[in-house]
Amino acid sequence: MVNYFSSDFKLAILGGGQLGKMMLYETRKYDIQTLVLDPSEEAPCKISCNYFEQGDLMDYETVLNFGRKADVVTFEIEGVNIEALKQLESEGIKTYPSADTLEKIQNKAVQKQFYKNNNIPTADFKVFSDLKELRSAVEKETVKIPFVWKSATGGYDGKGVSVIKKTADLDGLSDGECIAENLVPFKNELAVIVARNPSGEVRTYPVVEMEFHPTANQVEYVICPARIDEKVAEKARKTAERVSEAFEHVGLLAVEMFQTKDDEILINEVAPRPHNSGHYSIEASYTNQFEQQIRAILDLPLGNTDSKVGGIMVNLVGDENHEGEVVYENIEEIMKLDGVTPHIYGKKITRPFRKMGHVTIVDKDLAKARKVAEKVKNSIKVISKK
Amino acid sequence: MVNYFSSDFKLAILGGGQLGKMMLYETRKYDIQTLVLDPSEEAPCKISCNYFEQGDLMDYETVLNFGRKADVVTFEIEGVNIEALKQLESEGIKTYPSADTLEKIQNKAVQKQFYKNNNIPTADFKVFSDLKELRSAVEKETVKIPFVWKSATGGYDGKGVSVIKKTADLDGLSDGECIAENLVPFKNELAVIVARNPSGEVRTYPVVEMEFHPTANQVEYVICPARIDEKVAEKARKTAERVSEAFEHVGLLAVEMFQTKDDEILINEVAPRPHNSGHYSIEASYTNQFEQQIRAILDLPLGNTDSKVGGIMVNLVGDENHEGEVVYENIEEIMKLDGVTPHIYGKKITRPFRKMGHVTIVDKDLAKARKVAEKVKNSIKVISKK
Repeated sequence: MVNYFSSDFKLAILGGGQLGKMMLYETRKYDIQTLVLDPSEEAPCKISCNYFEQGDLMDYETVLNFGRKADVVTFEIEGVNIEALKQLESEGIKTYPSADTLEKIQNKAVQKQFYKNNNIPTADFKVFSDLKELRSAVEKETVKIPFVWKSATGGYDGKGVSVIKKTADLDGLSDGECIAENLVPFKNELAVIVARNPSGEVRTYPVVEMEFHPTANQVEYVICPARIDEKVAEKARKTAERVSEAFEHVGLLAVEMFQTKDDEILINEVAPRPHNSGHYSIEASYTNQFEQQIRAILDLPLGNTDSKVGGIMVNLVGDENHEGEVVYENIEEIMKLDGVTPHIYGKKITRPFRKMGHVTIVDKDLAKARKVAEKVKNSIKVISKK
Repeated sequence: MVNYFSSDFKLAILGGGQLGKMMLYETRKYDIQTLVLDPSEEAPCKISCNYFEQGDLMDYETVLNFGRKADVVTFEIEGVNIEALKQLESEGIKTYPSADTLEKIQNKAVQKQFYKNNNIPTADFKVFSDLKELRSAVEKETVKIPFVWKSATGGYDGKGVSVIKKTADLDGLSDGECIAENLVPFKNELAVIVARNPSGEVRTYPVVEMEFHPTANQVEYVICPARIDEKVAEKARKTAERVSEAFEHVGLLAVEMFQTKDDEILINEVAPRPHNSGHYSIEASYTNQFEQQIRAILDLPLGNTDSKVGGIMVNLVGDENHEGEVVYENIEEIMKLDGVTPHIYGKKITRPFRKMGHVTIVDKDLAKARKVAEKVKNSIKVISKK
């Protein structure tokens, strides 16, 4: 058994954003040494790791030389150099999730194909090598409008995804490999986080629900537990476990899915890391997702995924009319409300829709938490200094 | 209203031990800039603050020059230079708790006298300027054996306190100003943490209970909520609030007390900072004590002090037969138990009885948590490398 706690053991994290920062709370709690690589000199992770390096996550040499300093390598963002991970693995440095798993997920066309090959339910789709090929298919009506366009690579925070309702909608899209996916009429968008360690222990978090704004097509609240039928919840967790098993995944796998009108579960996409849909767990769960990630990749026993209380998460994104040095307006107002915890990621500059933080609202009574969450949403604003 | 979050505001913390380290989780969560002063180059706080300085906390010039770099100054240990705090206050730098409050608490003879002057119930006592004077009083029987000897200054973690059962017990004591206190036969040792901000908002945590080993005179478990009568709990909280008010205290005040055989509450002593008896709050409370301390000293709204679940804390102290590089034996075993969270402070060297970490056990059913806590206590050992 490796001795991780207050020892010479070193964990490398590729990426130094908010997900890495929240993982560092847990490595600090366990006194596990960490190294972080990030392209930004102002990365949120910078001051809580034992060693920080500024560098390009997609550069082979940079990732390889950085990873060689550690005993185990993980990542908090999918956009990392896979060849370097493979080389590290061949040198006996453990990489969790593995390069092989990441390779199946990093490219959305490959990911979708993987579901198909493994009989995992997902919306029908077609793959195109570039926009020209897609346009031609639309003209020939082998792809029928409306559909969902997804860029195969580089998508993040809603970028790289677009609903195509008329031919003209194709004009603004970025070129490159892409998918055209059937538009699924769904009742609910759900997510389940699965934790799996190298010994094969598996634990599944409760199903969470994304509540959308009634008119704007935007997630407003992530709610745990999802307000859905127990049987549907059970099916969602089982399906998520099947996905995790198919990927032979180690660490956390956040599985996003649709609940269709007929209560079928269709897999949308996965993220092999801690995820926005699991932030509620810091305040609500017995074991939060970041601690669970550390437990999983170090092959420690997994923690209890149950909730102590109901939890709701609201993202703090930059106001669309503001750019510059950030100010969190009315943060003191929301701190007056019981069960409300703001998390500020530490980015100095706000930009329209940039993820700057999140707020968790917990209560034994989920309906009460939902009301408080609405107050939070209507009070706090992420703006720039005048 | 001051803008603390992702701003230029700076908080200075005197002391860089485990209490400071756990406060830094919260300043990181809020992205508040911190400066830490500690005599040790290996202080647990070193890597999570924005600026670390090695220096003597009792040195006037060191504390003064350090404090001048910040907007608000606080401390995580009572042994700091009070004259420097006074000078900082006169220069307009806010010091919470205030130098005046700390002065009434730092010296236990002064603290006891303060209770007497403010009609706060406490065990009867006499003050002596040195051991010689105490010996003479014992000989003249103006102080009757048995009694509790307490050093007026420098006591910490059970040092500086001794039960004197026979004259020979006086021989091993350190010289200096001291107290002889009546031995109170008590049912329970309790503690209440009171939070108070400069605006005068007050919140009190539930009463916790110290459960002692049945034969050895040693606290084994800190249990929240205390398994006592609701009326006694109410009296304990009210008494703690009176103490906080008398001290005109800002920040957290941990009030340790005795529940006598007649259900009277007697104040034992206080600590003007986060406290061992509040560690359970990280996992069990809506607002943990470290977040509450930050809220209080920055005059932010105080958070909900209620518990989500029952909580029990077990200290991880160095095994008495081990000294050297630390190893946490069987830590993987306790991590298999649901609701168990180890906290490792990050001290590299273990010594007999040194506080190296703690473990929190939470469960909706406190009796169940108590059983798991016993398993934890009997499994994990803090030893040195072979």
